[in-house]
Amino acid sequence: MPGHVDDILDRVDSCKSQYVDDLCGWLRMASIGTDPAFTPEVRKAASWLKQRFDSMGISAELIETAGHPIVYAETPPVPGAPTVLVYGHYDVQPPDPLDLWTSPPFEPVIRDQKVYARGATDDKGQVLTHVLSCEAWLKARGKLPLQIKYLIEGEEESGSKGLNEFLSGKYDGKGPTVKERLASDICVISDNCQYGPGKPAITYGLRGLAYYEIHITGPNRDLHSGAFGGTVRNPVNALCQMLAALHDAEGRVAVPGFYDDVIPLTERERNEYRKLGFDESEFRKNLGIAAEHGESGYTSIERRWGRPTFDINGIWGGYTGEGAKTVLPARASAKFSFRLVPDQDPEKITRLVERRLRELCPPGVTMELVDMHGARGVLVPLDNRFVEPAARAIAGGFGKSPVFIRSGGTIPVVGYFKQLLDIDTLLLGWGQDDDNPHSPNEKFSLEDYHRGIRTSVALWQELADVKSPR
Amino acid sequence: MPGHVDDILDRVDSCKSQYVDDLCGWLRMASIGTDPAFTPEVRKAASWLKQRFDSMGISAELIETAGHPIVYAETPPVPGAPTVLVYGHYDVQPPDPLDLWTSPPFEPVIRDQKVYARGATDDKGQVLTHVLSCEAWLKARGKLPLQIKYLIEGEEESGSKGLNEFLSGKYDGKGPTVKERLASDICVISDNCQYGPGKPAITYGLRGLAYYEIHITGPNRDLHSGAFGGTVRNPVNALCQMLAALHDAEGRVAVPGFYDDVIPLTERERNEYRKLGFDESEFRKNLGIAAEHGESGYTSIERRWGRPTFDINGIWGGYTGEGAKTVLPARASAKFSFRLVPDQDPEKITRLVERRLRELCPPGVTMELVDMHGARGVLVPLDNRFVEPAARAIAGGFGKSPVFIRSGGTIPVVGYFKQLLDIDTLLLGWGQDDDNPHSPNEKFSLEDYHRGIRTSVALWQELADVKSPR
Repeated sequence: MPGHVDDILDRVDSCKSQYVDDLCGWLRMASIGTDPAFTPEVRKAASWLKQRFDSMGISAELIETAGHPIVYAETPPVPGAPTVLVYGHYDVQPPDPLDLWTSPPFEPVIRDQKVYARGATDDKGQVLTHVLSCEAWLKARGKLPLQIKYLIEGEEESGSKGLNEFLSGKYDGKGPTVKERLASDICVISDNCQYGPGKPAITYGLRGLAYYEIHITGPNRDLHSGAFGGTVRNPVNALCQMLAALHDAEGRVAVPGFYDDVIPLTERERNEYRKLGFDESEFRKNLGIAAEHGESGYTSIERRWGRPTFDINGIWGGYTGEGAKTVLPARASAKFSFRLVPDQDPEKITRLVERRLRELCPPGVTMELVDMHGARGVLVPLDNRFVEPAARAIAGGFGKSPVFIRSGGTIPVVGYFKQLLDIDTLLLGWGQDDDNPHSPNEKFSLEDYHRGIRTSVALWQELADVKSPR
Repeated sequence: MPGHVDDILDRVDSCKSQYVDDLCGWLRMASIGTDPAFTPEVRKAASWLKQRFDSMGISAELIETAGHPIVYAETPPVPGAPTVLVYGHYDVQPPDPLDLWTSPPFEPVIRDQKVYARGATDDKGQVLTHVLSCEAWLKARGKLPLQIKYLIEGEEESGSKGLNEFLSGKYDGKGPTVKERLASDICVISDNCQYGPGKPAITYGLRGLAYYEIHITGPNRDLHSGAFGGTVRNPVNALCQMLAALHDAEGRVAVPGFYDDVIPLTERERNEYRKLGFDESEFRKNLGIAAEHGESGYTSIERRWGRPTFDINGIWGGYTGEGAKTVLPARASAKFSFRLVPDQDPEKITRLVERRLRELCPPGVTMELVDMHGARGVLVPLDNRFVEPAARAIAGGFGKSPVFIRSGGTIPVVGYFKQLLDIDTLLLGWGQDDDNPHSPNEKFSLEDYHRGIRTSVALWQELADVKSPR
């Protein structure tokens, strides 16, 4: 039996409103990592977190990278107890389209017991649960039952270049290597969702990602569609044809070799998912769509968790202002991406996709493909010795045992940690599917926020009771 | 033999630099009719022209419409001589993309004996030739040999709604009807091109147009492409598929019934076009493309003059800013258009296209099709009695007899004039194919401008010598 943490939970319960103020203060910083115009706000958000650790008496630093800094903090080692690596990110998605936000994205507002702001759930709110639980431990007990190493980056939404370089040893100085510094027994990440309201979950699978930009160039200038239409290949038409050809009639990705390395869903997984009682009609109603859509032969849950996809994320070309302009545009561009599943390799996918697009690119236009970023999918073994203790912590914090699910999203570092530190990751998401992490009106339920903090408090005790084999 | 006009031409030759100043003054007014932000500049350009007529002692007025005003002016009737209707437009295309202009679009600059500015050739420069020729006649002779009615609109680039309403009698007051006011024997329009440098032309055919905007809507908000990819139809993917399906592999428009009313090119026309010596390699080089493209079975000239086309004029949807955003967008839109040929009817085409798009629109998204504007194609009979005199005027002004060609562009009023006034139109273009009328760096050769004025001076005499049958 783990030691009790009731004294710490009492403290946590008495600080509820302070914790909300803390979060709102951090959310006001518009840390849009992808947009250079917001670099000062990104740094402000990093410094805010460092100061938070400083104020708790924890040694913290900003690790500078070529991009945005990493916030790194660690508590003292606890002999005989394991070390936990907590990963998260303080950068946020761009907020556009701005006109669809009910309240401004960087002016957090509480409505209906939820905080609305960009970054509320992805990932500032979830990161903060693990920081505040540590603070509560320190205030109540003066020390933690295990060592925690916090690695909170600022480029998660834009490919984690700085973090990747840090992990590869690029910023190693004369002291310990990055591998020695980060050495841990398990990683904890809260950057995802519960299965549903009141249905906490441990996520044992993640999809990977391969994200590209494509530019199609035709004539050396925009042309009059009357004088030139019928003689010159239109780059927008060509782009639409090329992208349309990447899907077949069954909703499968039409790139030769694309499915070669896909690990199929097991019958056991498909059975377990069926038991989750996914309400397709509620799903459609919530999204305002008449029908679901995806690869034939799979349920929605199977497709989102265990099957790869192709989505165009953005497209632009020609005249997009008011009224009609009869132009035959010189150029067209798109951003598009594939969600991958284990064991698809993003580098191999890039080769296959580029080859297919070059075949599809018709005479009269030229194409440029830009590889924006890639990440492998992940499957965590359910017999890892930290999984059961984590499930107990959740059962305590949320009052209900977690279900075991996968996620359709991508957290590239999970793969890197496995490779560099040989550790698995506990994906303990406190969010909800409809939190709009990449859309207008992002939100995070205050109840889930508070339950997350309580679970995190218990988690340190539960994990501490697993004796470290190191 | 027509009366000589040498005294007027001498005057014209002595005013060359004044005429360039006149044009540049008008070009400085950013009369972008499609963009409400520029409405004051549009009115300024209309007033400038009215004042120009006023200063010549010609009765002129601004005819107000629901949109931009029409400038109308007429010279006194000349008994026994025909009446000529001169049509043109003072509105211009939007100038974007602005970053591709060598000099700002509304700060005219002379480089290489060409004036560079938005509207230089389309249509301010060409309209002005017919105004300045009249001025020269009045200054040299005190009167014109025939009556001229000028109808210069401000919405040609955005569907001519005000003009159409005016022509349909909507603004008729107590005086004569629009049909009585505009009654003429022939119409003259210079809003197009010569066949090539030093190859003046009379254009006997025009293509029509059917222009649309389409909006595809999927989920009620932008979604995370990880959490939702594979379950929800992506509106951008759907739009690309639908638009791609409107072309078949032969470059034909894949809409059932689309070609039903197309008047085929005659063998005689195809032979005449072959004799024009179109230089395909020069064409490709000029546009910087490796290959031409269009409907199989036709030459480039045949396709641009005598065959319908489908071009996407603009497309937008999802994230188009810097970096990568893993969004599954809620909406996608495009502007697209068909160039039509006689006898395709834009209203029928709209029905066919909408029916086909509704068939193509897949479950999970909805479509809205907006009919922006349409116009029929035109073929002018070459035995019209004003054609030969016009050819003589051109031979005098340009030193070379014109060739007879068609144009790929659209001038909707030509059809309306035929219908309302039962008159044909002389399409006497002074521009060049590479004048970039709808692209950055629009230009107009000063030599062509001056030849246009000289031809116009002679044209009034040549047409006056055709006795009016009215």
